[in-house]
Amino acid sequence: MNGKTLQGMGEFEAIERMVARLSTALPDGWVGIGDDTAVMPSPDGGSILLTIDTMVAGVDFWPDTPADYPGFKIITASVSDIAAMGGTPTAAVVSIVCPRSTKQEWLEALYDGIAEAAKRFEVPVVGGDTSVGTKTVITVAMTGACAPPAPILRSGARAGDIVCVTGSLGGATGGLRIIGIERTLKKPEADYGQPGMRLLERHLKPEARLGAGRALAECGATAMIDISDGLVADVGHICERSGVGMTIDASAVPIDPDLEAVGDRISHDVLVTALTGGEDFELAATLPPERFDEAAARVGTTGTTLTHVGVVEGQTSADNLVRIIREGKELEISLAGWVHFRDEQNGD
Amino acid sequence: MNGKTLQGMGEFEAIERMVARLSTALPDGWVGIGDDTAVMPSPDGGSILLTIDTMVAGVDFWPDTPADYPGFKIITASVSDIAAMGGTPTAAVVSIVCPRSTKQEWLEALYDGIAEAAKRFEVPVVGGDTSVGTKTVITVAMTGACAPPAPILRSGARAGDIVCVTGSLGGATGGLRIIGIERTLKKPEADYGQPGMRLLERHLKPEARLGAGRALAECGATAMIDISDGLVADVGHICERSGVGMTIDASAVPIDPDLEAVGDRISHDVLVTALTGGEDFELAATLPPERFDEAAARVGTTGTTLTHVGVVEGQTSADNLVRIIREGKELEISLAGWVHFRDEQNGD
Repeated sequence: MNGKTLQGMGEFEAIERMVARLSTALPDGWVGIGDDTAVMPSPDGGSILLTIDTMVAGVDFWPDTPADYPGFKIITASVSDIAAMGGTPTAAVVSIVCPRSTKQEWLEALYDGIAEAAKRFEVPVVGGDTSVGTKTVITVAMTGACAPPAPILRSGARAGDIVCVTGSLGGATGGLRIIGIERTLKKPEADYGQPGMRLLERHLKPEARLGAGRALAECGATAMIDISDGLVADVGHICERSGVGMTIDASAVPIDPDLEAVGDRISHDVLVTALTGGEDFELAATLPPERFDEAAARVGTTGTTLTHVGVVEGQTSADNLVRIIREGKELEISLAGWVHFRDEQNGD
Repeated sequence: MNGKTLQGMGEFEAIERMVARLSTALPDGWVGIGDDTAVMPSPDGGSILLTIDTMVAGVDFWPDTPADYPGFKIITASVSDIAAMGGTPTAAVVSIVCPRSTKQEWLEALYDGIAEAAKRFEVPVVGGDTSVGTKTVITVAMTGACAPPAPILRSGARAGDIVCVTGSLGGATGGLRIIGIERTLKKPEADYGQPGMRLLERHLKPEARLGAGRALAECGATAMIDISDGLVADVGHICERSGVGMTIDASAVPIDPDLEAVGDRISHDVLVTALTGGEDFELAATLPPERFDEAAARVGTTGTTLTHVGVVEGQTSADNLVRIIREGKELEISLAGWVHFRDEQNGD
């Protein structure tokens, strides 16, 4: 291990190593590294939530992006973590590292994006730190609060529960693809029309499902996560923490309608994009089947939808926790981002 | 303002601009940007504290420093902020951005330093995020708790209060100077003996005054701050927030004895280093004079000392909030770091 660098180490592995070094035994009622947020008991019988998110220019956002977008998005990312616990955000603190060559107007646009999201999600920014560095790095830490039955952890899914997701998937990745193809935010309207503009907006200025998270908590959700790494990866995190497997019905997965509208121009396969695309900030939850109708109705009152996409199985093999089926056959998602049926290794 | 960059903008100015853009009206019992930590009411009648601190390699620490030192120090910086409110830390979350070329052993040493400080100050690390960047950036956000009479804000100093500081000052800057001269952590023992090694340790692995902060809160402190920017600058922040002035008696300021021992080899003037050196993480507090003896005795039980160094005046001129006197004459501290008496412009 001596001399080995992080080259090729995924973010998940880096966090796992941090867990191994930093995890300590926590008192009852605490949750540490490994869920959407940390959880501490509150004196009123509820819980205090705490989360941290970082975005790096050139890695997490295109450096030419108008700065109000990453400002807005980093607040959304933390709010979404709190939504995935069934909580409500209470306060945010912001750290900004930027080069000396940063233009004041860029920095002020960044603050404006942060302020806009803070207002939208009703979470005051109560502190900050600034430093000088070679690349812009934006970090937000956020506290939240929840009352029983929240927080909803990743670890509570049980065999027989159903798997459901809010809203629709793949739109944020669609927007990111458009930027990757066009290398500008200006041409998409001419080239992709209103659907393209909405995909861009979904990538740059995402919504967080706060109301839906609280509704799902109150309707008996047994586990919940926000979709930041992609549906398959994120429900996989629920499987790992809950000691279960899942079967997802690909034909039930709600694909972003704007992604479908422009799909063949930006994506090999919109289904794969919906199954694996990150940063949609929708919620995936597991529920007892008898609670689904009530949960769908409650989520419907929060401005989005709830779709039943799969079922929780007993423990399956560790290398295939999440099975994706379509028309009764199991699909395999290759690293290249294509879907093919298992046992049809030459097909696509 | 268009096109102007951050070149020449101080950190304080950058934070002031953030305040202007992000501050919102807060409910009663809340404190936002501008104190050592943010403050929110807790359901038990106390307060929840929240702070964030960032360190950048090459700016806030020498990149060749063994990584356990910056790991330890960033936890200390946040704990010290909470100490300055009279609070107790409850939980920390950590974000680490580092280049792909970072060695695993360096990263693991960083985690070990974080874990060591977390254990020392009894604050569990409950969450984290990692990203890739060009320079290492470490950010810690920490929650804390306090009960009345804490939190002690910067805004409560009153004319007639005395000004006091814990421990001794200038040692962290002494250690930083030794690194600046030697460009290595290895030679100092031969060149500067045990005092040099202790100064290095004070710079690299500082203590936070948690017990002293709680003692001062309970003994009637009217305002408090931790000394991260230097005594004169930090008591100046109390003056600004409290609408008062201060007179500091330079001959009473407790100079780090190790700094005095090696002083003329690393410092033009140890007094100036003690008055202006940052990152000692001692506490400066204002107190009603009749509470000093009790406070000094209580602070004495926490493993450090409390020294009376000055007095709070009514509002003075805005450009000279903190007067420094020695032998009855006012000193002026020039930007070059030399002290001379006011009206003796050719002296040093």
